[in-house]
Amino acid sequence: MPHRDDQSATMRSAMYYGAHDIRIESVDKPQLEAGKCLVKVAWCGICGTDLHEYEAGPILCPGKQPHPLTGSSLPVCLGHEFSGVIEEVGLGVEKWQKGDRVLIESVISCGECYACKIGCGNACSKLGFVGISGLGGGLSEYFLSPQEYLHRVPDNVSLREAAMSEPLAVAVHAVRRSGFKKGQTALVLGAGPIGCFLTKVLVAQGASMIICSEPSSTRRAKAQLAGAQHLLSPLETDVVARVKELTGADGGVDVAFEAAGNERALETGIKALKTRGTLLNVAVWSKDPKIPANELVFGEKAILGSSCYRDDHPTVVEALGSGLIQLNDFVTAEITLDDLVEKGFKELIHNNEQHVKILVSPSNKAWTPF
Amino acid sequence: MPHRDDQSATMRSAMYYGAHDIRIESVDKPQLEAGKCLVKVAWCGICGTDLHEYEAGPILCPGKQPHPLTGSSLPVCLGHEFSGVIEEVGLGVEKWQKGDRVLIESVISCGECYACKIGCGNACSKLGFVGISGLGGGLSEYFLSPQEYLHRVPDNVSLREAAMSEPLAVAVHAVRRSGFKKGQTALVLGAGPIGCFLTKVLVAQGASMIICSEPSSTRRAKAQLAGAQHLLSPLETDVVARVKELTGADGGVDVAFEAAGNERALETGIKALKTRGTLLNVAVWSKDPKIPANELVFGEKAILGSSCYRDDHPTVVEALGSGLIQLNDFVTAEITLDDLVEKGFKELIHNNEQHVKILVSPSNKAWTPF
Repeated sequence: MPHRDDQSATMRSAMYYGAHDIRIESVDKPQLEAGKCLVKVAWCGICGTDLHEYEAGPILCPGKQPHPLTGSSLPVCLGHEFSGVIEEVGLGVEKWQKGDRVLIESVISCGECYACKIGCGNACSKLGFVGISGLGGGLSEYFLSPQEYLHRVPDNVSLREAAMSEPLAVAVHAVRRSGFKKGQTALVLGAGPIGCFLTKVLVAQGASMIICSEPSSTRRAKAQLAGAQHLLSPLETDVVARVKELTGADGGVDVAFEAAGNERALETGIKALKTRGTLLNVAVWSKDPKIPANELVFGEKAILGSSCYRDDHPTVVEALGSGLIQLNDFVTAEITLDDLVEKGFKELIHNNEQHVKILVSPSNKAWTPF
Repeated sequence: MPHRDDQSATMRSAMYYGAHDIRIESVDKPQLEAGKCLVKVAWCGICGTDLHEYEAGPILCPGKQPHPLTGSSLPVCLGHEFSGVIEEVGLGVEKWQKGDRVLIESVISCGECYACKIGCGNACSKLGFVGISGLGGGLSEYFLSPQEYLHRVPDNVSLREAAMSEPLAVAVHAVRRSGFKKGQTALVLGAGPIGCFLTKVLVAQGASMIICSEPSSTRRAKAQLAGAQHLLSPLETDVVARVKELTGADGGVDVAFEAAGNERALETGIKALKTRGTLLNVAVWSKDPKIPANELVFGEKAILGSSCYRDDHPTVVEALGSGLIQLNDFVTAEITLDDLVEKGFKELIHNNEQHVKILVSPSNKAWTPF
């Protein structure tokens, strides 16, 4: 770490310069501003999106052009799944005070485009994210947060668990958007973090049956932990036929969730739906997939896209606070900021299936309660 | 025509034996049965589905196995878009009498599968059609109709126009299923018969703007006749960019209708939607298409399939009877049964773009009012 005259005015942050180039640096600690709170970050998760940026970015991170909403270009601070404690409160902030435990909603929207005007800022034409598009992030000792990005962490919820509220909000939004109702049946395709969190939400929503299709046995075990009753390997089982067997006279599930971003999984999901069933796509695609379009027509099926979250954090906070959804089992490692690349990114690249969520302590306090 | 002893007990019918093999034959006139009406067919339209069977069938027509609902195998009588006059009424039929002018609802469903049980017989697992799957058809002098397949033709509607109620029902069902509302904007992809009829329904539904994308200028003229305000050629125009221009701040249409069965049209339709817009797919596909899946995700868009019709005929009859929808402009030829192959099928294959609907008179009374 380079020498600085005034250590107190700097903080350590994970800065993204481009593919395979993340540097843990000392940067200026942000100055408090009116309407904002300075949050000392407790825990920050590493997301699949971060991995994609590390391996093949910049994708969502700004490239040659600065991001239209933040004005930032590379390098940007990473980390968009995080929790912390308020350390300073800016002028005009009335809802928050020093010591409040908070989680951060990371979507940044313009407020002016058609999507924003219909209350769908998660589909904003200039969509951005804290920790991806500039404005700072959670893989840093401090984050200067606009007060409206903050949600209160219930007293009985740990800051570790609260750091997972962001991917949980993605899952809550997807289930909400799918129209899934109590007593219905679901097929979850892919048991990565989002597939597991979707399963948790479906259990909480009162699903009568949750089937998971996932090639990795390690990941199927995580889906089972999340509450899936039937675990299928698409490499060993005809998933469509088995779903039809399991759902009997219905001839398919009510809703299939594509959380794999895989053409074959998408096809399976569409074919495994009952008449008028819905495939909810939450995955992001690196290549346009083919769809069995006649299945859509003759079964009057639907495919819906779901993006991030919008107004879902209150539900998330309530579900965590009431204990209806518990995520602690999904923390598979806790590491320090210094170890971010080696024990975080590289570990996820080489042993991805072993993990659901790796949490990072920016203040290097790994393995100690915060 | 072979000699028969009792000419009165036979009738002339278009029998489908397989690809490129349709024969106009004398067959036994059906015997009246309880609960059924003998209908003398007035006019029967030729449908794209009939053409597919002629060129590459059997597709929906029974192949080596008899159809599970009708028990019929080849040859089968063709014709599923037709109108006529009741000539005889079977025992137990109270609603109908001799001389009633009727149109026929052609979908046959099992009544027992999941789809049927949720009122979605148009997605029946054994789905069949009069005039395709057996039971007789409209390209025949007579059709013995179960009484529940019949709908009354309003006095002020011609039997010619009534023969087009079947494809109109397809369009009504598609618009209904899309959730399209008065004042919304639409893009119709493909201006064949279904594209034109969709446009008619959208006008009746109070669309604020209807844009049609269609490569053939002849067909674009038909779409204009149907009521489309903006006619675009995808070969000459960037349709997505033009739709975004036309829809201004909305950044796209509310609903796009895929009536082309073309991968590029599907892609265009999805990209031309506003946030949370719906692509309604009414086309049947000969090859699985790719979709721009990330557009679905980040725009939270939807793709819905629509199949045939179900409980849509009352709307169709009302729309025709009130004059809200008029279809007479779409009859591009009237021919006799004897000319079916040469002036019907072959004409549609070689000069498809010139036509919307060719009507056939099974009693060879072409060009005379019935």
